[in-house]
Amino acid sequence: MPYSNIDKNKSKLNPHVSVDCVIFGFDFDELKVLLIERENLSVEGGLSIRNFSLPGNLISDDENLDQSAKRVLYELTGLTNIYLEQFYAFGDPERVKRKQDTEWLKSIREEPSARVITVAYYSLVKLDAYSPTAASFAKKAEWYPITTIPALAFDHNHIVNKAFETLKSRLQSQPLGFELLPEKFTLGQLQKLYEIILGNELDKRNFRRKILNKKILIPLIEKQKGVPHKQAQLFMFDKEKYEEVKNTYFGFDF
Amino acid sequence: MPYSNIDKNKSKLNPHVSVDCVIFGFDFDELKVLLIERENLSVEGGLSIRNFSLPGNLISDDENLDQSAKRVLYELTGLTNIYLEQFYAFGDPERVKRKQDTEWLKSIREEPSARVITVAYYSLVKLDAYSPTAASFAKKAEWYPITTIPALAFDHNHIVNKAFETLKSRLQSQPLGFELLPEKFTLGQLQKLYEIILGNELDKRNFRRKILNKKILIPLIEKQKGVPHKQAQLFMFDKEKYEEVKNTYFGFDF
Repeated sequence: MPYSNIDKNKSKLNPHVSVDCVIFGFDFDELKVLLIERENLSVEGGLSIRNFSLPGNLISDDENLDQSAKRVLYELTGLTNIYLEQFYAFGDPERVKRKQDTEWLKSIREEPSARVITVAYYSLVKLDAYSPTAASFAKKAEWYPITTIPALAFDHNHIVNKAFETLKSRLQSQPLGFELLPEKFTLGQLQKLYEIILGNELDKRNFRRKILNKKILIPLIEKQKGVPHKQAQLFMFDKEKYEEVKNTYFGFDF
Repeated sequence: MPYSNIDKNKSKLNPHVSVDCVIFGFDFDELKVLLIERENLSVEGGLSIRNFSLPGNLISDDENLDQSAKRVLYELTGLTNIYLEQFYAFGDPERVKRKQDTEWLKSIREEPSARVITVAYYSLVKLDAYSPTAASFAKKAEWYPITTIPALAFDHNHIVNKAFETLKSRLQSQPLGFELLPEKFTLGQLQKLYEIILGNELDKRNFRRKILNKKILIPLIEKQKGVPHKQAQLFMFDKEKYEEVKNTYFGFDF
């Protein structure tokens, strides 16, 4: 457990730059985002306010940004072996200056008033393969539907929106979606995923024709299990084939 | 001239975060990058070494990152009204620690040994519409062919490569190329631009058919001037049409 104790590294943390992680998962029904809940600090009108945020923290001075993102995600949620991709840096001078945020920073940081620029990463994971376990200053680490994300710390709602936009736009030029599905999936499940990310219904026949034309799916003899009737055919994503064609691959023109 | 004197702002510069700009231009023959040359400081074996870098500097504490990029580009090269797009943050702990780089930093920065994370921006401009004028610590600001970029300060060669990769990949899903061409252009000029960025020759007939099928070009009655014979037809990019179709636009499947 190289990162089990955040306090050990505390003196090496760089107070000016942080990383934040937007981890997307899909449960066949909804797109979800992994959030952490921090200890209650703010109380308003006698009611304590729940403190949600993205998993994120300051970088450490001996790490590059990718290493920081991996470490921070691991420390707060226990997740490892996740491919994180950097997508944007956020540097509004006011981004950590709201009252509830500065109070929390005072409780945890050595230089709570420092301006912090954050470098954001995103990842797509097969939701059921990852069970987050909260640690460090995270009291909970849970999946939340992207359609009902609560108010988050700092500019984290803005970061989630930007990550979702990035996902949407990359889905149009790369077959990203497969990273959110189990190894074997039905065309119906794949279509549902595309509909949810793109935000509109797709014609079933067109979808099937276009996606099969891309020739990056391997049809299996095996059929879907656990459904009473009309068991659909299963497919796998053909990574090798995709690597071959990816320079001439331009997404799905739905 | 709000940014004419960099020293005025010096006390407000944030020593931990910088911005760097990769400005691409096209002269119908080559893709070029705007570099600045700084005062000679390093001398090796009696010969002074030319100090090239991207236009870049520390952010100022009252600016967001986009504002910093605009200001820094203006201060060093005089260029304004350029749409800069953020594409990546670079944070290797060693990125400003090479001997020749630390020497230069000592001559210009208040905290020359601070670790600096840089947020990089890129832009595509019509080369002949912008005449850079060096100022501040830039002694020269000139266009250099991307194929023969000299050794640059810090990790700037790496940043140029990453910007070029980004350009290449975005060109496959967006019609970015038009920003590098004059308002009216021939299909031959457009094809040349694509060939140079994608790094391979394209079949003329296929290129014309595919690009015209996208229906984002306006054919003009006017023909190319200044060439002795075989004057080619001119086209304009149809921005309005592109805005309409851009959600179903997936680049050129060459």
